[in-house]
Amino acid sequence: MVFLTRRATFSASHYYWNPVWNAEKNEQVFGRCSNRNGHGHNYTIEVTVSGEPDPVTGFVVDLKWLKGVMECEVLEAYDHRHLNLDVPEFATTESSATIPTTENIAIAAWKRLEPAIAAAQGARLSSVRVYETPEIFAEYRGGA
Amino acid sequence: MVFLTRRATFSASHYYWNPVWNAEKNEQVFGRCSNRNGHGHNYTIEVTVSGEPDPVTGFVVDLKWLKGVMECEVLEAYDHRHLNLDVPEFATTESSATIPTTENIAIAAWKRLEPAIAAAQGARLSSVRVYETPEIFAEYRGGA
Amino acid sequence: MVFLTRRATFSASHYYWNPVWNAEKNEQVFGRCSNRNGHGHNYTIEVTVSGEPDPVTGFVVDLKWLKGVMECEVLEAYDHRHLNLDVPEFATTESSATIPTTENIAIAAWKRLEPAIAAAQGARLSSVRVYETPEIFAEYRGGA
Amino acid sequence: MVFLTRRATFSASHYYWNPVWNAEKNEQVFGRCSNRNGHGHNYTIEVTVSGEPDPVTGFVVDLKWLKGVMECEVLEAYDHRHLNLDVPEFATTESSATIPTTENIAIAAWKRLEPAIAAAQGARLSSVRVYETPEIFAEYRGGA
Amino acid sequence: MVFLTRRATFSASHYYWNPVWNAEKNEQVFGRCSNRNGHGHNYTIEVTVSGEPDPVTGFVVDLKWLKGVMECEVLEAYDHRHLNLDVPEFATTESSATIPTTENIAIAAWKRLEPAIAAAQGARLSSVRVYETPEIFAEYRGGA
Amino acid sequence: MVFLTRRATFSASHYYWNPVWNAEKNEQVFGRCSNRNGHGHNYTIEVTVSGEPDPVTGFVVDLKWLKGVMECEVLEAYDHRHLNLDVPEFATTESSATIPTTENIAIAAWKRLEPAIAAAQGARLSSVRVYETPEIFAEYRGGA
Repeated sequence: MVFLTRRATFSASHYYWNPVWNAEKNEQVFGRCSNRNGHGHNYTIEVTVSGEPDPVTGFVVDLKWLKGVMECEVLEAYDHRHLNLDVPEFATTESSATIPTTENIAIAAWKRLEPAIAAAQGARLSSVRVYETPEIFAEYRGGA
Repeated sequence: MVFLTRRATFSASHYYWNPVWNAEKNEQVFGRCSNRNGHGHNYTIEVTVSGEPDPVTGFVVDLKWLKGVMECEVLEAYDHRHLNLDVPEFATTESSATIPTTENIAIAAWKRLEPAIAAAQGARLSSVRVYETPEIFAEYRGGA
Repeated sequence: MVFLTRRATFSASHYYWNPVWNAEKNEQVFGRCSNRNGHGHNYTIEVTVSGEPDPVTGFVVDLKWLKGVMECEVLEAYDHRHLNLDVPEFATTESSATIPTTENIAIAAWKRLEPAIAAAQGARLSSVRVYETPEIFAEYRGGA
Repeated sequence: MVFLTRRATFSASHYYWNPVWNAEKNEQVFGRCSNRNGHGHNYTIEVTVSGEPDPVTGFVVDLKWLKGVMECEVLEAYDHRHLNLDVPEFATTESSATIPTTENIAIAAWKRLEPAIAAAQGARLSSVRVYETPEIFAEYRGGA
Repeated sequence: MVFLTRRATFSASHYYWNPVWNAEKNEQVFGRCSNRNGHGHNYTIEVTVSGEPDPVTGFVVDLKWLKGVMECEVLEAYDHRHLNLDVPEFATTESSATIPTTENIAIAAWKRLEPAIAAAQGARLSSVRVYETPEIFAEYRGGA
Repeated sequence: MVFLTRRATFSASHYYWNPVWNAEKNEQVFGRCSNRNGHGHNYTIEVTVSGEPDPVTGFVVDLKWLKGVMECEVLEAYDHRHLNLDVPEFATTESSATIPTTENIAIAAWKRLEPAIAAAQGARLSSVRVYETPEIFAEYRGGA
């Protein structure tokens, strides 16, 4: 079995804000990330699939196809977007929000990618790693 | 003469929007960057000063001092901010705006840094380089 | 147990071509990679061994020795070579070829390295990761 | 479960010297690393913790807290230090020494970090990776 | 005046071969680069233009336009190609060749880019830098 | 004219200490860098030469030759050394020292490289850039 990874980048805004807390509590927990005007990052996403290389093509998956899946499922929705305002899974309601932390972005990207990759023969999604900066990254390998 | 450079990073949001154009024209010129919810980047700034190393310390400037100047003059104002909404030089009025392109950010950072560095003895600001992504950067070396 | 990794680079040419297909089919599947004049990459290889650090030297393996193994077994054969034309395991016959995809290079490098490392005491080969570009890499951890 | 990683750097000196060997034997085994005046590196350390993101904050751990733990437990002791002379776990006695190889630094950093992280709720230390240079790194995932 | 740079990559093969020398002389001068099967690199090209930012758009040039120029003029011709066999300016005749060294690639790329950029208003080509590897690069700033 | 650059790395220790000051003054000016046990870095050096590419070889200079010059003149003296204790130009006497700051290392490396490169036909040393870390670098372009 081989683990094959493709990396891509997207540029997005976000903020950290829990709607059940007041401004003071949000700033205490989230610091400068609680600025409601938002701030942003060049995110890097690494998508790893695993499988046997096809004996005819030498491919675990066709990397052009994988690029297309990543663009359709993740980059189209996240790149040049405000994650809290433009992306449904991070929308803030009056009483709750899934905060777009690096951890939650990795899980959300997995959920977007997994069905499309599972539908392809011969490979399965192994991990999704998201870098918020070169110093901070989160990796999700699927649920139990 | 030696050219001494210090690099730092900041994370910020921005959008490209000219207030005298309608939405269609803004999107035609600026593409996805015209999304008014904003998007963001991990910017890198490289500040270069030039001068003779002090024979006693071996310093063109004290790099701890330069770090402090960069933090006070630029990072405090730009990091974890929305450049259009939180930073005065990029504010949008009804009739005009200085768009926070990489070019304009390099010029604006120069204007913030130059007086503080000119006030120090023995060195002068030589250039300010700003990376929006690893693929795109702008460098300003002062006016004529 | 500690996992110790050494990284090296090699520059090589390759093309993707299945000899049982005609040119049209090869181009359809492999795109620009099917150009028979070849194209090339700066490959990066990361070789990871695992074991207990020797209490006398603090080494899982001597990294100078590991560098020598990587040079003898992989770089001598792959660096400044055309993988399809100069490297036996990727030779194209009339009826078959192991296409030098990143996946297959990772497996081939493992097969070259594993016997030499297994012959050394106290460590075993844990994984071989090959980067074709910074955006694409494959990792092989041995067969079951 | 999500694996969350924070990266930091420190600059330190070290040498490789086994006190029960003479100079000739030390140089034979350790080469230029046996220079008793020492040499140095910009080390990078990656600390990975694992756990479920908190549903309220989206955090596996608060990254500001993790930064503080890394600074208190590791950087304060190792940064701008001579590992053999300034750090107790690498002290050379007449008859023994734990050589500050990359492998042993990864283990030592684990031992410094693990109690502080174990004392926090909801996450556990998963791995510590130390880069001596971009070409050489060691990863420790804890004992059995 | 601001210097604005855009970076791109291409993967290509080449060899170093002077047709007026025999194989022995070619190998003596060019070493492993003289292998006629070719070898390859992931090249990085940085194209720098200079000018005043347009007061309306904040652009020295439109970076989408610059990307298009780089793709049309350079990447279309060089990417996934064999520079000696597929690119006219590096063709080998019986008596001469422009060897595709990093130096000559920088000059050739300048010649391809300069007319298209000169035809645009408000900016001029300032430099072309080509990286063969992260360790080797050449920069051309135009003739006198 | 083309500017051709080769990059190399060396690992060295140093400290900042002015022998005419007491310990308190040294610590006040130099902070943690004044630790007399030393600390260290992975330095990167970029050596740029300029000239016309030779019409026969396509070389401004032979990069294998330049690598040899850099190894003989700089790396042999600086790599795996303590700059203050092992390198003559940074020796501390009772009354003076050239502190091995990044600025002074760039100048010292220039003085080591310039005569060897000037003795070669067709190229001249254009600049020496030294990175102490990825965040700090100094460039020297020769005296007036």
